[in-house]
Amino acid sequence: MSINTITLDRQGDLPAIFEACARHRVAAVCPWRHQVHQAGLERAAKLLRDAGLNLSGYCRGGMMVADKAHRQSARDDNRRAVEEAVTLGAPSLVLVVGGLPQFSRPGSAPSKDIAAARDMVAEEIAHLLEFALPAKMPLAIEPLHPMHAAERGCINTLRQALDLCDRLDPARDRGLGVAVDVYHCWWDPELATQIARAGAARLMAFHVCDWLVPTTHLLTDRGMMGDGIVDIALIRGWMEAAGYGGHAEVEIFSERWWREPMDKVLETCVERHKRVV
Amino acid sequence: MSINTITLDRQGDLPAIFEACARHRVAAVCPWRHQVHQAGLERAAKLLRDAGLNLSGYCRGGMMVADKAHRQSARDDNRRAVEEAVTLGAPSLVLVVGGLPQFSRPGSAPSKDIAAARDMVAEEIAHLLEFALPAKMPLAIEPLHPMHAAERGCINTLRQALDLCDRLDPARDRGLGVAVDVYHCWWDPELATQIARAGAARLMAFHVCDWLVPTTHLLTDRGMMGDGIVDIALIRGWMEAAGYGGHAEVEIFSERWWREPMDKVLETCVERHKRVV
Repeated sequence: MSINTITLDRQGDLPAIFEACARHRVAAVCPWRHQVHQAGLERAAKLLRDAGLNLSGYCRGGMMVADKAHRQSARDDNRRAVEEAVTLGAPSLVLVVGGLPQFSRPGSAPSKDIAAARDMVAEEIAHLLEFALPAKMPLAIEPLHPMHAAERGCINTLRQALDLCDRLDPARDRGLGVAVDVYHCWWDPELATQIARAGAARLMAFHVCDWLVPTTHLLTDRGMMGDGIVDIALIRGWMEAAGYGGHAEVEIFSERWWREPMDKVLETCVERHKRVV
Repeated sequence: MSINTITLDRQGDLPAIFEACARHRVAAVCPWRHQVHQAGLERAAKLLRDAGLNLSGYCRGGMMVADKAHRQSARDDNRRAVEEAVTLGAPSLVLVVGGLPQFSRPGSAPSKDIAAARDMVAEEIAHLLEFALPAKMPLAIEPLHPMHAAERGCINTLRQALDLCDRLDPARDRGLGVAVDVYHCWWDPELATQIARAGAARLMAFHVCDWLVPTTHLLTDRGMMGDGIVDIALIRGWMEAAGYGGHAEVEIFSERWWREPMDKVLETCVERHKRVV
């Protein structure tokens, strides 16, 4: 099990989160950039080593859709994300690719052209790959739930992400793959077949939480594993059958869980991970 | 333009809605069952004729996923929906197929098996078709947005709906097709190709509203056409290029618009339909 540090974003800073994870014998973490910047990059890297924590990824690059005026700053930002991931020793940089330009890079000219946004994502990932490849930092495209297509990510199915991988990295030797999050993908009727298609080389991360019914907020009402309707163990089985051997990374955006003490959240994650993941 | 009567559900009953639609020279309506039941079926049929309103559909049959104890009542309910649609003279009965059994038919035993729910939908549509075919009532499967997969509809893409149509009605002569709602489908990277695949025989309804950013509620925060980020005219173009010649039916579940007077909503629909649909 790994803990994505957004899960504890309101309870403490990165040093406190790392310490708590080590105390609860969590094997790995996936830190977020804003938390790393707050703690300081070199200090965060040292804290990780001192705590004996592995990384399951680094969250996140992306938000690549921008108008001309904002394109270069988006590129610079993503190169920095790659460099930070290298410094931290992350196995991959997770990419949340962005939606329409006005939401992805605020200040960009508004557009309703989702097809153009998708074309731009392909172009920008190709561009970033030229930088990430010599830096030896794999890029993991995370398909987002279609309800986030406009503002956060216009890659919305695993098929779509893998089509892009096949186009930009046909021989599977350039370090391009996917992050599969059960929250974003559980509904997809093609999920099993696309995970099998992906195979070990493309499956770079596996994120878990749960889908609650009812869901009261599009972004911050994700559930603790076992509290919703996703058959997480089934999806984990598909991942492992396809050759994935990495962590199950708990990533929960939740007003409800952000209000709980850090130790209680971690205890619950450990218990639920054993029981339902 | 057609008005789906849910758009005015809180402002008045069916007689009041029909009268207002006639006053605003709306060509057609798509009434909901609960409104028809409240007004009385025969009376609703007469009111429609008297107002000179056409129908663009009847909303809705479905919620077909149930446990054994609730299966027969679901079947009976759907047969009644077909009979009502015939009495009203609807061109098709829209099917919102249902999600997991505990939400689709409350009281059913809980399940996390979305694949089983999908299998059951296929079986139940096949069953209903045997009843609808001699009654000459076409069935329009409406793919729902993936955010509704658990509680309202486990058919979530047009591809999935059309695969089912091809399986149950391979020669396209049994009156099985789809209702395309821009709200549910706008994000789909395969939307253009799947609409083209569907063709005129399968395209039975076209629902319009808009996707707002941010969306504050999963069900009741749909936008008036033009207030969101969907390029509705583009999708309408795909529908027409594929041979669809029916109405653009305005269906808006919205706390905001349910608070406005009926005349203001209809005026706005007419104006926006001209400008952005």
